[in-house]
Order: sequence, then C-alpha cells, then structure tokens
Amino acid sequence: MPSEGKLKTGKVAIVGASGYAGEDLVRLVLGHPHADLVAVTSRQYAGQTIAQVFPKFSHYAKAKTLKFTEPSASLVDEGGDKVVFLALPHGVAAEYAVPLLKAGAKVIDLSADFRLKDPAIYEEFYAHKHPAPELLAKSVYGLCEIYREEIKKANFIACPGCYPTSILLPIIPLLRAKLIKPGSIIADSMSGVTGAGRKVEVDYLFAECNESVRPYGIPKHRHLSELEQEAGIASGQKVTMQFTPHLIPVNRGILTTLYLEPTEKASEELSKKIGKAYAAAYGDEIFIRLLEGKALPDTKNVVGTNFVEIAWRLDLRTGRLIVMSAEDNIVKGTSGQAIQCLNIMNGFTETTGLI
Amino acid sequence: MPSEGKLKTGKVAIVGASGYAGEDLVRLVLGHPHADLVAVTSRQYAGQTIAQVFPKFSHYAKAKTLKFTEPSASLVDEGGDKVVFLALPHGVAAEYAVPLLKAGAKVIDLSADFRLKDPAIYEEFYAHKHPAPELLAKSVYGLCEIYREEIKKANFIACPGCYPTSILLPIIPLLRAKLIKPGSIIADSMSGVTGAGRKVEVDYLFAECNESVRPYGIPKHRHLSELEQEAGIASGQKVTMQFTPHLIPVNRGILTTLYLEPTEKASEELSKKIGKAYAAAYGDEIFIRLLEGKALPDTKNVVGTNFVEIAWRLDLRTGRLIVMSAEDNIVKGTSGQAIQCLNIMNGFTETTGLI
Amino acid sequence: MPSEGKLKTGKVAIVGASGYAGEDLVRLVLGHPHADLVAVTSRQYAGQTIAQVFPKFSHYAKAKTLKFTEPSASLVDEGGDKVVFLALPHGVAAEYAVPLLKAGAKVIDLSADFRLKDPAIYEEFYAHKHPAPELLAKSVYGLCEIYREEIKKANFIACPGCYPTSILLPIIPLLRAKLIKPGSIIADSMSGVTGAGRKVEVDYLFAECNESVRPYGIPKHRHLSELEQEAGIASGQKVTMQFTPHLIPVNRGILTTLYLEPTEKASEELSKKIGKAYAAAYGDEIFIRLLEGKALPDTKNVVGTNFVEIAWRLDLRTGRLIVMSAEDNIVKGTSGQAIQCLNIMNGFTETTGLI
Amino acid sequence: MPSEGKLKTGKVAIVGASGYAGEDLVRLVLGHPHADLVAVTSRQYAGQTIAQVFPKFSHYAKAKTLKFTEPSASLVDEGGDKVVFLALPHGVAAEYAVPLLKAGAKVIDLSADFRLKDPAIYEEFYAHKHPAPELLAKSVYGLCEIYREEIKKANFIACPGCYPTSILLPIIPLLRAKLIKPGSIIADSMSGVTGAGRKVEVDYLFAECNESVRPYGIPKHRHLSELEQEAGIASGQKVTMQFTPHLIPVNRGILTTLYLEPTEKASEELSKKIGKAYAAAYGDEIFIRLLEGKALPDTKNVVGTNFVEIAWRLDLRTGRLIVMSAEDNIVKGTSGQAIQCLNIMNGFTETTGLI
Repeated sequence: MPSEGKLKTGKVAIVGASGYAGEDLVRLVLGHPHADLVAVTSRQYAGQTIAQVFPKFSHYAKAKTLKFTEPSASLVDEGGDKVVFLALPHGVAAEYAVPLLKAGAKVIDLSADFRLKDPAIYEEFYAHKHPAPELLAKSVYGLCEIYREEIKKANFIACPGCYPTSILLPIIPLLRAKLIKPGSIIADSMSGVTGAGRKVEVDYLFAECNESVRPYGIPKHRHLSELEQEAGIASGQKVTMQFTPHLIPVNRGILTTLYLEPTEKASEELSKKIGKAYAAAYGDEIFIRLLEGKALPDTKNVVGTNFVEIAWRLDLRTGRLIVMSAEDNIVKGTSGQAIQCLNIMNGFTETTGLI
Repeated sequence: MPSEGKLKTGKVAIVGASGYAGEDLVRLVLGHPHADLVAVTSRQYAGQTIAQVFPKFSHYAKAKTLKFTEPSASLVDEGGDKVVFLALPHGVAAEYAVPLLKAGAKVIDLSADFRLKDPAIYEEFYAHKHPAPELLAKSVYGLCEIYREEIKKANFIACPGCYPTSILLPIIPLLRAKLIKPGSIIADSMSGVTGAGRKVEVDYLFAECNESVRPYGIPKHRHLSELEQEAGIASGQKVTMQFTPHLIPVNRGILTTLYLEPTEKASEELSKKIGKAYAAAYGDEIFIRLLEGKALPDTKNVVGTNFVEIAWRLDLRTGRLIVMSAEDNIVKGTSGQAIQCLNIMNGFTETTGLI
Repeated sequence: MPSEGKLKTGKVAIVGASGYAGEDLVRLVLGHPHADLVAVTSRQYAGQTIAQVFPKFSHYAKAKTLKFTEPSASLVDEGGDKVVFLALPHGVAAEYAVPLLKAGAKVIDLSADFRLKDPAIYEEFYAHKHPAPELLAKSVYGLCEIYREEIKKANFIACPGCYPTSILLPIIPLLRAKLIKPGSIIADSMSGVTGAGRKVEVDYLFAECNESVRPYGIPKHRHLSELEQEAGIASGQKVTMQFTPHLIPVNRGILTTLYLEPTEKASEELSKKIGKAYAAAYGDEIFIRLLEGKALPDTKNVVGTNFVEIAWRLDLRTGRLIVMSAEDNIVKGTSGQAIQCLNIMNGFTETTGLI
Repeated sequence: MPSEGKLKTGKVAIVGASGYAGEDLVRLVLGHPHADLVAVTSRQYAGQTIAQVFPKFSHYAKAKTLKFTEPSASLVDEGGDKVVFLALPHGVAAEYAVPLLKAGAKVIDLSADFRLKDPAIYEEFYAHKHPAPELLAKSVYGLCEIYREEIKKANFIACPGCYPTSILLPIIPLLRAKLIKPGSIIADSMSGVTGAGRKVEVDYLFAECNESVRPYGIPKHRHLSELEQEAGIASGQKVTMQFTPHLIPVNRGILTTLYLEPTEKASEELSKKIGKAYAAAYGDEIFIRLLEGKALPDTKNVVGTNFVEIAWRLDLRTGRLIVMSAEDNIVKGTSGQAIQCLNIMNGFTETTGLI
C-alpha cells in the first residue's frame, strides 16, 4: 500500500444529495482528506451552494463555493475521471450508472438497483423490470468486511441496505462455519425514523412517530431479497428468511435481534465454536466491536459512527442462539459504508474520513 | 348482575403508591365511581396528602384530604372490609397479603409474588425461597380475558406482569386451538422506560435512554416463569419459550412481535382457522381490538388506555405465523388490569373507571 | 341550574375532523354524556366510519356507525338544531359559520376567524380581508375563566388560540389589578409539535424535530393580534406585546414564561398583592392550578387534560415578575376548552366529559 | 505561529472523567493529534481501562491500555509537565488546581471555581467560602472568542458555564458597542438533560423528562454570577440580569432567546449598526455562524460540534432586539471549548481535534 501522504486526491461527485443519506455523504466527503468534491446534484436545491442548503457545513471552504446542479448529461459525459456516488431512489440510479460506467467513472451506488444478481428476484421484490440487467454481474456488493478483496478491484459498488448490513454481518460468519441452520433465521429489527428517508408523508411526522413503536412492511420487506441472496452465498444453499422491521422514535440507529437454531445441541463447546468463528471473522476488524462480558449492543454507542456492535448469547434452556447488533443506519448502514468502499477501492487507509 | 346504580361503593386501600404503577392506580381509583379510597401508603411520602405528592390529582376532593401513611399493622388489622391493592416489590408483597387475607380483605397483588403455582420455579427465577407457598394455590392469575370466571369468585388476585399480558393474550387462543407448536414460541418485545419503575439508576436517566435502543435481561428474564406456566396450562403440556425484552425511548407502551410455527402448513385454510380462533376468543372483548385489513398495532393507539391491539400475518413463504400486540405497560399491563379485576370481582361493569 | 340527570342530550356536529384538534374533539364528544354526535365531516375520510379512521375510538358504538361525510349544504341547512364545532383553517371557517348561525345553530369555532373584533387587525395579521366582518361583534372569545358569563348567553364562540390561552390566563388578573405595566409584557413559549397541526411538511418530520429546539414566527406571530386585543381589554389601554414561540420535541404541551414589570417596586407587599389577585381570579377555578411552595409548572402534569398550571416568582434583584404556565395545547389550548364552552353554553356542569 | 507539523505533542491528564463532560473530553483528547493522554482519574472506575468503561472509544489504541486511577498526590506531584483538565464539581476543583499550578502544570478547569473574580460573589451564589481566593486573579475566563489574547498567555483557564457561553457570545459585542441597555437583558434558555450531568436523581429519569418541559432554578441561578460579571466588564458598569433556564427532552443543546432594549429607537439604521457589530466581532470566527436571511438557530445544526449559531431580529413594533443562539451544551458549552482553549494556549490551529 502506498504511504498515505503520497496518495492523490481524487475527484468525487454526488448525484442526489438532498436526502438524509445524501446529506451525510456530503458531510463525509467534505471532511475526507483525499476526496475533492467537484459536483453535487439536486433538482430541489439546484443553484444554491452547499452552505446555503446545509449551513452546518459552511466551515468547509468548498461548501461556500460549490453549488448544487440539476443532474445533467454533461455531468455524466465528463464523469470519467471521478468517483460518483449515486444517492437516488431505486429504479432511477440505473439511468446514471450505465453511462457513467461507460464513460470510465467509478460508481458507488447507494440504491437497491444493483444489489441483486438475479433480475427475476429484483422484479419480484421491486415490482418492475430491472432497468439494466446486463450490469448485475459487474457490481460488487459493498459489505466491506465480507467483500473487501472484491471491492479492491471493483469499479462499481452496490452498497447494502441499512437493515441487511445489521443482519448479514452477524450471520455470515455463522453460516460460513455451518454453525446455524440457514432455514431457521429470524431477524427482528428496530430502526430510527431517518431510515424512511426525508419522505414528507404523514406517517413520519413527529407526532405520529414520537411515543410510538410499530412494525411495518411484513411479512415480505424488500430487503429480504438481498438478505436471502447473501445468506444463500454464505451457506451455499437457497435460504428463506424471516424479517420484521419496526419503527422506533429515535433519529438514527438500527438494533437487530436474531433468533437462530444451531446445527448442534447448545453446549459450552458450541459456545466456544461460536466465539472462535466471530473472532476469526472480525477480531481484526476495526469497525466491528465484538462485545465482551455482560455488555449488550446499544444504538447510542454507535450513532454518528461507522461502528457495529455485536453480542451473542447461547440459550441453554431453549437451544437457540440469540445474536444482537447495533449500527447507525445512515453511517455504517449507508453513507459511511459507501466511504469505506471508496477507501478500499482507492487504497486509502480504510478508516480515512471515518474516525 | 345488579343494576349499576344500586352498587355499593367499596373501601379501597393502596399499599405502596409511589411508583409509576402505584401512582396510576391512585389515579384510577380516585376516578372510579364505586371505589372509596380510604388509605394509601408510602414510606417516602408519609404525612403528605395525595395532592401534595401528585398535584395533578388535586381536583379530586379526596386527594386534598387523604394523606399517605407508613404501612402499618393497623392498616392490616382493620383491612378486612376493604379491597387492598399491593403495589410493592416482589418478596415484600407477601408480607402484607398473608395477614390481609386472614383479616378478610380482598387482595389484588400487582407484584410477582403469587403468579406462579410452583414455589420451586419461583425460587429458580426470583433467587429466594417463596415467602408464603401455602397461598400459591389460592391466588387467581388476573389475566381478565382468560380467567374472568375465576376472578369473579376470587378474593385474591395475582396480576400478570406487563410483558406477559402482551404475550399471553395473543398466544393463548392459538395454543388452546392447537394451531401453533408450543415449543416454537419466540416473543420479541419492546417496552417504554416506565417499565423499569421509578428506579433511580444511571441506566434509566434520560440521556442514557433517549436516542437509544437496547436488549436486556436475556436469555432468562423473570417473566419467562409466568409465561411458560400459562402457555403450559393453555396447551396442556410443558412449554419452554424464548423471550427478549428491549428498552426503547418512550414513556409507555409495549409492542410484542411473536414468531410462531403453526401445527399445519401455512395456507388460506389455516388462515381462516386462525381468524376464527381469535374471533371466538376476543370478538366480544371490549378491551381487545383485533385489527383488520392492513392495520398493524402501534403503541400510540393504546397508550393511556386499557386496550390491547392484536394483528397477525401468516407468512406463506416461510410458513411462520407472525402475531403482534400493543398495550400500555402501565395500564393494561398493570394498574388498569388490576382495576378490571376489581370490577369483575365486585360485579361492576367491566369498563367502569377505565373508559 | 337544572339537575344534571334531567339535561337533554344535544345533537353535535364536527366540521373538519381530521386534524389533531378535530380528532381530539371527536374523542371528547364521543365520551360526553350529554352530546350526541350526529355528523363529522372530512373531505379526506368521507365514506369511512370514525372507527375505520381512528380505530382507537372503536369501543364507542357511535364510532362504528357514524361515517365521515363531505361538508355539504344540507349539513348547514339542517344544522339549526345542533351545536356545530368548526375545526377548519382560518378563512374557511367563516364560510360555514355564516349560514349555520342563520339556520339557528350554535357555533363553536376553533379557527382564528372570529377572535378579533377589528377587521383591520385581522387583515394586518392574516393577510387577507375578513370574510364576514359583520359577525365579529357577535362572537364571544371562548376563554372560559375570563368570559364565562358571556359564554352562558352566547350562540357563537370563537375559541382562543393555544398560545393565547397559556399567556392570557396568567396575565389578565395582573392587568385587571393594574399590578403590571401593559407595555412590558414579554411572552416566551415552547410548544409541542402537534401545535403545527397534521401538516405534512418537511419541517415537522420526526427527524427534523427530534433532538432539536428552535424559535419560529418572530417577531410578529399571528397570535399577537388576539393577545394584544385581550390584554388591551383587560388593561383598558392599547397594548403592544413581545411573543416568541419555540418548537420543542414533545407531542403536546405549551410552557410559557412571562417577563413582566410590576407597576410598583418589588417587595413583600407587592408579592402579597399578586398572590391575592391570583387567588381572587382563580382560587375557585377547577381547571387552573395555582402552584404552591417550590412547585413550578411542568407540561407533563397537564398533558391529556384541560388543566393549566400557573406559578410566579417576584425577583427582588431585578424587580421583574416572572410568571410561568403549562397547558396541553390540544386540550385546554383547543378541543378541551371548546367542550368547556359547550358545557357552559348548555348549562352542564363545567367539567362534564373533561375529567 | 509554528507550522503544525513541527508541534510537539503534549502530555494531557483528565481529573474526573466519568461525567458527560469528562467523557466527552476523553473523546476529544483521544482524537487530538497533538495531545497525549497519560492519565485519567475516576474514583468510580479506578482500575478499568478507558475501553472497558467506554467501549465506544475502544478503537483508540490508548483506550485499551490506559486505566482510570484514583486521583492521587503523585498525579499532582508529577503533573508539572502536563496540561491537566479538571472535570470536577465546584468546590472540589480548587483542591487540585492549587498544587498543580504550583507544580508547574497548565490547568484548564471546567468547574465554576475560578470563573468569578470576586470571592464575595462566589460565596453569595455558591453558598460556601471560596477555597482559594488568592488564585482568582490568575485565572483567565476561557470564552475563546472574547479572551483569545489572554488565553494565549495563560497557564490557568476557568472554562465558562454552558448557559453563559450561549448568552455572553451574543450580548458582548452589543454591550461593547453600547447598542443595548445593560440593565435590560433577559435571557431565556432551554437546555438538554445532559446539562444536569450524570446525576442519578429522580428528576432526570427518562420518564420524568420525556414529554415534559419545565423551568427551574429561578429567579437566581448560579450562572447569573458569571453572566453579570462578564456583562459588567463588557459594558463598563455593574449589570443585573434576568435568566430563566428550562429543561427540555433532548440529550444535548442549548437554545437561548434574549430580549434586549436598544439604546436608541429601533430603525433601519440601528439594524445596520447591529449587523456591523456582529460582523466585526465574529465575521472571522470559524466557530460562530451568524445566520443570514430567514434562518434561525436550531440546536440540531450544532449538536456534536463546537459551533454556535446566532441570529437576531429587531422588532420595529416593540422596539426590542431579539437575539437567539444555539450551541451544544457539552461541546462548545464545556469540553469542546476546553479543547479550543488548549489549542490557543499551545499555539495549535484553533480547530485542531474539533472539526
């Protein structure tokens, strides 16, 4: 790896920067020592500087001069020398990804458009034909701790959904080690309200969310498609999962509780195997904290950061394995992981701009 | 049933009225048309009137005159003509229940002391010998919709825990109808912070709970003892359950999501059977709302009330049955259900003082 | 006053029942023993029963049968035998008030349309010509503790705004007793987010309000028009006031802190005069709690109720009088006070349906 | 100023690191490129590493090795080569400051012990004799934007209180320019609950603060002592102020609204003078954002940062000037400003470790 000091700063563009994920990406890119933000697009804010739209970023010199623009053909035509983040709704991201990749850009897509390898499953879960099925084989699923080697060589990243990040990181080491039955996975998650994006709908008004907790999107939430794909790859077999998301009154954070059936009887010995599997997978991962002793994950310990907390308990009474994780749905769940991908792709220290 | 107008108002005492449940019980008894609050005890507040301790109740004439007292022998000796609510920590409630029952009082105990029928299980879960095992056979578990007939004839009620109320109401009809496998029950619950009581511990400070969600007490929370007892009675066999509570930043409310394996393959037909089982059990229950159409439970619809919302989804992909419930942990989960028991015991209309 | 038992139940209609105030009014009318809800209108919900739109009201038999309708001419034509609540935006309420009054209905208007006596001030603050200036002289400002006698004889009530209720109740007794300088009034208020109504705007999304506090609408909020009118009436001179509202992350509640200059030097004697003025004005008012000792207002003590808490401190260092009040912006600030007006108009006990 | 690259990293100790301010100071020092944390003390946590007490800091190598110790004599004796932060209760900080200064350490005190120049005023507001009055003349009040030159030369800093920072920054430029009457200042502030520290008292429990807003500590809050001292220095005359703090349900953030009487009639011309005074004072200050156009301060824009937002409105109707500010009570209000002092004292770029 080249010494950090010699690294060339690269040009970065962000397409669709007005939602919560886009805004957080702007924050991270402005603060990144090797990223030079040269374009941000937003239909809503075109013509205004970043500092006008987000006064809290106004201490960055760039925020005072760089203006939002309408997404345009020239952005794409001249995009070849850039890393371009797409923070757009699914179905729309593909419109930009195709020409940008052709022009030679590196593309980091935060939408759901290129996470699935099978266009039929995309259509099943997203209810429209995939807009660019020929590209599905070329994207790398940007779950950094799992696909680091692939990301290093990639020029096209499909960042995982916020829920899948919180679910797949805990289960993949167990599936790979064949410690749990792939068909037994039940994922129960609670998310802060930014997970819904900056969507102006009555359901997300303060007084509808505050002092409220509710399930939604059951039993077939869209994220099941990428969850089952990745659990299938890790286990080497087709997987059907259970997943229930809940909305809770916090701004940020996802807490996931997983109910899993081990492949063998719960015992001290199994406990050791589970501990070893996690230590082997994540013992050296800076962004994953395997909690020790009595500690359990708490979103307040990860909010605003790219860290994930994981803890597990083997229930000797029921035989089940309970695994819990906590992450910031916007950072590790979206924008932070996208920056982590950028760092890996470009050979930067993986924590650059994130710690 | 006698006409409501002719009902005699009965004397009521509340022992231990300074916690959240006790305070709410004071509110409900003050507003109850057939209850005459004659004594409230609290070591902390002894000598002060109810209105001084809880100014928000000061519009009740009784609140301005009735003073908190130290719990005393005379309270017990003269308790024979009263209904006495015990809002005390487990282990302490028994000290009052024994002499009060002997003196002829009706006792409604909100603690965990008399919920379990087997003193060995009590000792296993509460870590000390049961203080009055001879009374365990005499108490009635105060889950009103399930034990109404027993409550009518009872003079000693052990009110269910807040979590068990939210879990048992949804599963008992399914267990009785043999529609789910008793060994498959996974209960994932989220509770507001009043569930911890007015405990002055760092974990429950505002800034430790706000913008936070965390699991706790796993894998063997105390409420499992009554959950397994009651699920066992409903199914006619020994049951071991999975239960994970989480703390979320709301004052009140429990949302429970249940993962259940049906005894037969998921199908339209099974779906009808489940619907029928719920309609038969709760179709006429005023405090249980079986949600229809796309509606899902939301704690904000039940907070401050004695209502429970229940909805279910049969997942044809996974074969599992997902049942969700919402309640106010303090009202239906504690004080409101205690008042419902009072109404049933005394032949009052069941909703008196609750709607 | 006739005995409560003999009171005839009256027909009630609610026009515009889909906002937070309208919803709360539906709740209060459904639970009111002398009110028979015969019509509710809402363009958005026309055709659905109350129980379908608000499942939490479904235990009221009426909620299962009464359907929302489009507001129509027949509602107005046949409205003469009813009390009609208007929960509509300002400017729109007048369209209904005029024909309803002509048809003989009693009208209780929750909008700002008929609060002001001077159409020029209406135009100055609401930026359009008053739609029915001839009616301004006929409406009674529904601040119950101040205008009770007028309300008794009225058939047309203009309910005060939520902020004005929290500000005028504390200052009117002081102004009437000439204890404060009318030109010195500074009102600093904090309101929960329901105060903005069920408006679907980005500013009121959960993640925009949670973990946030912000002033707005300064320096000339519309409520200044009715504040200055009523302070002027109480003091017998023209008054110009300072008022700053802030939005805080609670669902309900307004806390107002008032900074006032006494007409005489701060002293023990002045302190006694202030105490006497409040005792004379509110000592017998059930919905106003004059706090004693060290107690200070807290919205959590009034939320969900029609009560107002008031406390004051005379600062001997600065010579200023600080008065603080707390109310529920939706109940005492809107729907509860409207019901209180209904009770007064119809000779019901003033607390009917409110305690 | 020396080039940043050549700056020597200095040794830093933190005495009393278990409260919210201490914890945040640990975070900032661990991430500061020129600070080498060599000691942290806490009676409660002695013997545990930083990573054990605060797992969220465990990605810093130092957090895994450095253990909390009991505050001891040797810490003080060997403290001469360090910058020592005192995050202790008032009255206690002096015990450490005296010997540490004697030993040659630079001391940055976050308590209230050395903010006041007059020991009589300390005694009036803090209700005990000042423990080290001879040091009062030596401390510099660490309000960075006001006392930068003094801080550069100082070895003993008394960091301002959180409320005073939010109040003094907006008013000092106005007082210095003689644009407002010193006797007219009314400061109305709302603070998040971390402002109370990690105090385990019933008043700060989640369910006592959530869905609540309440004033406290009126009319003579301790912070008035430093507010009046500094307003007096800025205006050249003795000042008596009005100050009302309120507790609101957010973790962090103070929003202050100031009511001020200008020394001349409100006019466009006065408006320009005010704008010029602020631009001259803060136009080049990176941590102060003078908001433009319609923007008003919002704590959510500054939480987690060392920034302060300020906006003002001249009310031509009332003649008053309304100034509003927003800050993070823990960062700019406490730990962040302490680091800013460290940077200024040591010749580091002022934003080091803060942006």
